[in-house]
Amino acid sequence: MIRELAETATETRLDAFNRRLDQAMDRSGSLVCVGLDPHPDRLEEPMVDFCRRIIDATWEAAVAYKPNSAFFEAAGPSGMADLKTILAHRPPGRLMVLDAKRGDIGSTAKAYARAAFGVLGADAITASPYLGGDSLAPFLADPTRGAFLLCHTSNPGAGDLQHLDVGGRPLYLEVARLAAQAWNGADNLGLVVGATYPEALEAVRAMAPRLPFLVPGIGAQGGDLEASVRAGIDAAGRGMLISSSREIIFAGDPGEAARRLRDAIDTARSRAS
Amino acid sequence: MIRELAETATETRLDAFNRRLDQAMDRSGSLVCVGLDPHPDRLEEPMVDFCRRIIDATWEAAVAYKPNSAFFEAAGPSGMADLKTILAHRPPGRLMVLDAKRGDIGSTAKAYARAAFGVLGADAITASPYLGGDSLAPFLADPTRGAFLLCHTSNPGAGDLQHLDVGGRPLYLEVARLAAQAWNGADNLGLVVGATYPEALEAVRAMAPRLPFLVPGIGAQGGDLEASVRAGIDAAGRGMLISSSREIIFAGDPGEAARRLRDAIDTARSRAS
Repeated sequence: MIRELAETATETRLDAFNRRLDQAMDRSGSLVCVGLDPHPDRLEEPMVDFCRRIIDATWEAAVAYKPNSAFFEAAGPSGMADLKTILAHRPPGRLMVLDAKRGDIGSTAKAYARAAFGVLGADAITASPYLGGDSLAPFLADPTRGAFLLCHTSNPGAGDLQHLDVGGRPLYLEVARLAAQAWNGADNLGLVVGATYPEALEAVRAMAPRLPFLVPGIGAQGGDLEASVRAGIDAAGRGMLISSSREIIFAGDPGEAARRLRDAIDTARSRAS
Repeated sequence: MIRELAETATETRLDAFNRRLDQAMDRSGSLVCVGLDPHPDRLEEPMVDFCRRIIDATWEAAVAYKPNSAFFEAAGPSGMADLKTILAHRPPGRLMVLDAKRGDIGSTAKAYARAAFGVLGADAITASPYLGGDSLAPFLADPTRGAFLLCHTSNPGAGDLQHLDVGGRPLYLEVARLAAQAWNGADNLGLVVGATYPEALEAVRAMAPRLPFLVPGIGAQGGDLEASVRAGIDAAGRGMLISSSREIIFAGDPGEAARRLRDAIDTARSRAS
């Protein structure tokens, strides 16, 4: 049934972001998202050269890139020009997710959407849910662009709000419920779900069977990869953008690190299906 | 008792952001914060000229400015240079609050703090609470700089998360409780509380007696001004940065609009004390 619905959606709304993501996963044969977090104290070359080199070395094994806005903002106005350059360095058939965690109301959210999609040319953005559904709407107004909404994170303070009980479920599952049942009208919304707790990933998948997940926190060697893939994969055997940053970008051979992660995910996918 | 504690803090930690804010309010005689939201379709001059003109016309009646990062980001890389120019155009004794609603983890949050305080030179930033206490820590690491944490907003979707019951209180009051009791160790944390619902402002004030509030949503003519001031003011008769944007910056005479708001707040303060 879920597969039937998915196929209907593919036929009728080929261009919605979540369908573009499915196609990119199928065509690239990869669920790997490379997080571009250019820590200035770890770079021996200009930020834009570093990121272009990483993209060129990894794109055959990756389906998406996730440049982290914070590091470009911290480099000053020229960093924003660099970010635009990097987002334009999109390999064929790959997607660019701007990691910015934006969340604001009305005309301000519209301006953030214009910055991310219009000015910078990103395919998707990460967003924060605290202000509710109307604060997300500007990021979802163009169905061909998407947003990944913060749901469950892996940092020590995640539980401060996300684990609070709201009527019998933790807040992060209520965010997943709202995203799946109320906010995904244009088929272009996903969720950010950390990989550290596969049981949380499984609960979010049960609540949001068809939403794509952006899953940070998996290293190429991560023992949790198989458990995470089993817990988070959707009925079609995809639905996860598995994001790795420093384990790839600061590896001796970034291309090899990306291929290793892609292959490890493949093994986990074949065991999970 | 509260007043005694406040005085001790003033003597021993003169430079913490919240004390700097108290002093700026006392010396300027104003609680007015001018929101710099330069909507591009409403400007007839370059963004930086517009903002400088507004600051020059209003600063005698204002205590702070709140440039909205989104509008500068939407102008592209040159907009970020403009934002830096505007933040450096700080009138004597006034404070600059970067409205950016940032919220991310670990080294990313550190990079956002470096962007806001180090690169752009803001005195404070607005931040989002969904990722919990450790995501705020980088914004609070320098006690002379501050953060205003999203608590209760006035947009239609605010209730989606903020009004959810968490153990007998709405989520926004739990955010206020955490901010007041756990996260304000350096005396440089405040809360963003919309003016639309004075009863919510009153409940947040009861939960966080000594935290400064950044209160958007009040126009110069707002019938709710008196109720909001009564509900939100602290024991020392201040504790609120009352923010107005388009009612001041797009007024025929922005200086006059700022003075009118300052005077209306003064009247409300004298009636509330």
